[in-house]
Amino acid sequence: MSESQIPVGEYLFRRIASLGIKHIFGVPGDFNLTILDHIYSVPELTWLGCCNELNAAYAADGYTRIRELPGVLLTTYGVGELSAINGVAGAYAEHAGMIHIVGMTSRQVQQKRPLIHHTFEPNMDHTIYMQMSAPVRKTHALLVNEETLTADIDRAIEECVKSRLPVYIFIPMDVPSILVPASALDKKLELDVVNNVGTESKILDKVLHALEKAKNPAILADVLTIRHGGRDLVRELADLTQFPTYSCPLSKGIIDEDKPYYMGVYSGKVSFPGVREALESSDLIINTGTLQTDSNTGGFTRNIPVERLILLEHDSCVVLGEKFPNMHFLPILRRLVKELRSKASRYGLPAPAPSHKLIPPQLRSDRTGPLIQDFVWQRIGRSLQPNDARAITSTFWSAIGFSIGACLGACVAAREMEHPGRVILVVGDGSLQIAVQEIGTYIRFGFKPIIFLVNNNGYSIERAIRGAELSYNDINSSWDHQQLLSLFGARPDTGVSSFSTQCHTVEELEDVLENKSLANCERICLVELFFSPFDYPWRLATQVTNTLGRPLEKQDKFD
Amino acid sequence: MSESQIPVGEYLFRRIASLGIKHIFGVPGDFNLTILDHIYSVPELTWLGCCNELNAAYAADGYTRIRELPGVLLTTYGVGELSAINGVAGAYAEHAGMIHIVGMTSRQVQQKRPLIHHTFEPNMDHTIYMQMSAPVRKTHALLVNEETLTADIDRAIEECVKSRLPVYIFIPMDVPSILVPASALDKKLELDVVNNVGTESKILDKVLHALEKAKNPAILADVLTIRHGGRDLVRELADLTQFPTYSCPLSKGIIDEDKPYYMGVYSGKVSFPGVREALESSDLIINTGTLQTDSNTGGFTRNIPVERLILLEHDSCVVLGEKFPNMHFLPILRRLVKELRSKASRYGLPAPAPSHKLIPPQLRSDRTGPLIQDFVWQRIGRSLQPNDARAITSTFWSAIGFSIGACLGACVAAREMEHPGRVILVVGDGSLQIAVQEIGTYIRFGFKPIIFLVNNNGYSIERAIRGAELSYNDINSSWDHQQLLSLFGARPDTGVSSFSTQCHTVEELEDVLENKSLANCERICLVELFFSPFDYPWRLATQVTNTLGRPLEKQDKFD
Repeated sequence: MSESQIPVGEYLFRRIASLGIKHIFGVPGDFNLTILDHIYSVPELTWLGCCNELNAAYAADGYTRIRELPGVLLTTYGVGELSAINGVAGAYAEHAGMIHIVGMTSRQVQQKRPLIHHTFEPNMDHTIYMQMSAPVRKTHALLVNEETLTADIDRAIEECVKSRLPVYIFIPMDVPSILVPASALDKKLELDVVNNVGTESKILDKVLHALEKAKNPAILADVLTIRHGGRDLVRELADLTQFPTYSCPLSKGIIDEDKPYYMGVYSGKVSFPGVREALESSDLIINTGTLQTDSNTGGFTRNIPVERLILLEHDSCVVLGEKFPNMHFLPILRRLVKELRSKASRYGLPAPAPSHKLIPPQLRSDRTGPLIQDFVWQRIGRSLQPNDARAITSTFWSAIGFSIGACLGACVAAREMEHPGRVILVVGDGSLQIAVQEIGTYIRFGFKPIIFLVNNNGYSIERAIRGAELSYNDINSSWDHQQLLSLFGARPDTGVSSFSTQCHTVEELEDVLENKSLANCERICLVELFFSPFDYPWRLATQVTNTLGRPLEKQDKFD
Repeated sequence: MSESQIPVGEYLFRRIASLGIKHIFGVPGDFNLTILDHIYSVPELTWLGCCNELNAAYAADGYTRIRELPGVLLTTYGVGELSAINGVAGAYAEHAGMIHIVGMTSRQVQQKRPLIHHTFEPNMDHTIYMQMSAPVRKTHALLVNEETLTADIDRAIEECVKSRLPVYIFIPMDVPSILVPASALDKKLELDVVNNVGTESKILDKVLHALEKAKNPAILADVLTIRHGGRDLVRELADLTQFPTYSCPLSKGIIDEDKPYYMGVYSGKVSFPGVREALESSDLIINTGTLQTDSNTGGFTRNIPVERLILLEHDSCVVLGEKFPNMHFLPILRRLVKELRSKASRYGLPAPAPSHKLIPPQLRSDRTGPLIQDFVWQRIGRSLQPNDARAITSTFWSAIGFSIGACLGACVAAREMEHPGRVILVVGDGSLQIAVQEIGTYIRFGFKPIIFLVNNNGYSIERAIRGAELSYNDINSSWDHQQLLSLFGARPDTGVSSFSTQCHTVEELEDVLENKSLANCERICLVELFFSPFDYPWRLATQVTNTLGRPLEKQDKFD
């Protein structure tokens, strides 16, 4: 009997499903239909069509951040892959790796090079778009060689999982139906990061030695800890040690903020009062997975001397100034936690509560009056429920519009994980206008996020920087946001229920936060919050002021 | 007295305004605010903020096609320029050149290479996005050298106008305020295409000689004639000669279809009955500005023997098989028209009406019943008014969503030209979902296009190709399109009037076409037309059938 065979299109999707992934994001096009067909051969997978490719890329990115598995994005040759490229670039910058599958012209057409649609000019090399996207990926597989199809696919998937960076799989439209041995699926994918074990032991010894000597050590858990799969480990490290533990702006939520040892967000000079002083006065800082960008370091004002720093990164580790290149923090952190767990008393763990307590940041307690940014975000923070608390932000890549797509991805991830918490989107009106259509996709697939929409008539983040009152920072201020959910499909005639309202005052916000629809996510909710265009959150205003070295052009001040 | 100086940002916009351009499309961002400021120093220019960069690029492209001047697109570093890249690529493919200005990080920051937002990784070369977009432009200017700022700007603008391809101007955020001599503006821009005059004369002689000998010559005016500025010339050529004249799918509208010598759209085997035979039996064909793509040639079934062909292109001319590289048709066509105008009788012009008359294509004359694509487009065609008739389509680059942005550009161009005709958008529901927000921009800036929206529940063009009933060709079918104009700002409370309606039947369509709002463009109109998902226009169905070599999977047939 001859060996059992399957089409390589099905092979690709079986490999993807084997990771635990259940949805594929994207938009169909002439050159990806033959690969799309094979999704239906893998019952674990569902096609999740988005309105456009950029939003689909943002969705795949948001999925990755919550699910901690690669989001899968599927687009078509030229027009589709280029429309998505900014979303893939963001995933590259922030290590939210995705598998981007691009259906391209057939191998025969690539040979002949006709002036077929989605090309540029006569005799064009059909790999030109592949070359354009090279800087935004770890690797790619161009599936043209029938001898290596399964190996090429496996290599791309393995690289994506290990590097946490985007990879591309380019599949000509004649290729998905090519048969490959089903037994190729039996080969286990190599998904684990592996270090040089000897160097790993050396690092571990140095870390443990430093811990034994430290008087007031601290943990600073940054965002690449999450992206590279170390969230649970760093949480366990903090629980075991009870060391004062800090997050960064980009990693907010990595540590449960109700824990007694949680100290706040460290962002150099743009930290809440006391946080910077406390962190910087520690005699040993275990700092994991850093992304030392402008917005994540208070405009490069982070100040931790190397002789008190244990820096555990995905591409190197530095212990008290001694650098070990090409060492990944994940296996080291795993061994460190195991060691501390089994020999807690030897290391004097859990550590006693720190002698100096942080004064909790002074929170606003508005009861009446107009909405103010500094109050509202604190208030919404206090309304969070235990299962809500996992934040996504993209303030390094900083593409406005990201959050709408990312929220879709978060909804999909939460559904796959059967996660009981709510999905909450906070989005500005300018950002909304970039990607608004994907709210329809929430409704189409039955997702029920809570949308807090900031209505402040334009790009306030740009007003803070320059041109506070110039027309380039205005948007169309005539949108009736209260019609959004209805237009996109939540109406009596479709049977989809929704809750949509406006808040101009604290009293109105308090009413809304008590609403059962919000508390239980029974239906999709949109809460439109009105702010002054010149009201900026404290952290933004402080960072911009520090960077520009002058007061903002125009800023509302509140008591 | 020292020489008068102006900021180079102002210099750039003065040069742009000197071409006759009056609007700048784009989206603000941290790195383009310092260049945006200078728009306000040039009173001829108005900033036209779009919802997102891809739509802004489509708008600049649409503007170019109508205005026959480069659309100007302004975006920010990384996130902005990459979001727009697919629109720029389309403008490159279809020769609808634009000037894409990108505000980037300051020169000082580019030297230091910090991990600033919109970058990828430590020590990143800040020109990385510039490299990614290299294949979609003719040239670029990176404004970093203070000695050559004005020359660099001039060169980029000149190349754009002459090549009709996109160019990029990258301007670091510290550069716009640098002062340059105002007198640099006195130097005239070199905007005219210039050929080798001797070769030009040789080509002209050969063309005239061939014309003298021809018995039944014809003109085939293709789309690059328009893009490269030859529309009026080819119209004059047809008027002077009265030769039977044809357009192509991409150039539809290049010749006034009411003219007696207009013969129809030639698209190889995908032409209306008789058109192909008539064109292909001519003994001399003057064929200008071709773009020989799949959709423009009936799937590469164009059949014109070289020994009867005069091919006048923007990059070469071929006269009866003799090739002249690097010769641009524009100066040649100009001389040809001049010669024929002054010596009409010598060339026996105007030619007598051709002996064989085309049987006019049989048009549908439905009076009742559901809407059918083949009827509706003919019917809407017959409702066009004299000043309406200039078509934009992008069926080579074929990015769905293009038309919404392009319509904005067309509206802006029409306003600048004080054009009395109506702007009419025909858009599918899948396409609408890609770029819907820009309808709000029509309303924001007071434009009043007529929008014919095809509601056929998905991507019917893909259903024709594959997966007719598979879910990947479905979209969110619960949008209430009748709320669109209202949500985006046309409401009693904003004082913006609109007309929005649905048509399911021929009777309803006839009623709507008689409506005064449509006839006079008094207000923005949306007419939602309902079709079966499996009803495809004749030309699409024919071409797909020919390409696939089999009947479509599922297709509605009508009497």
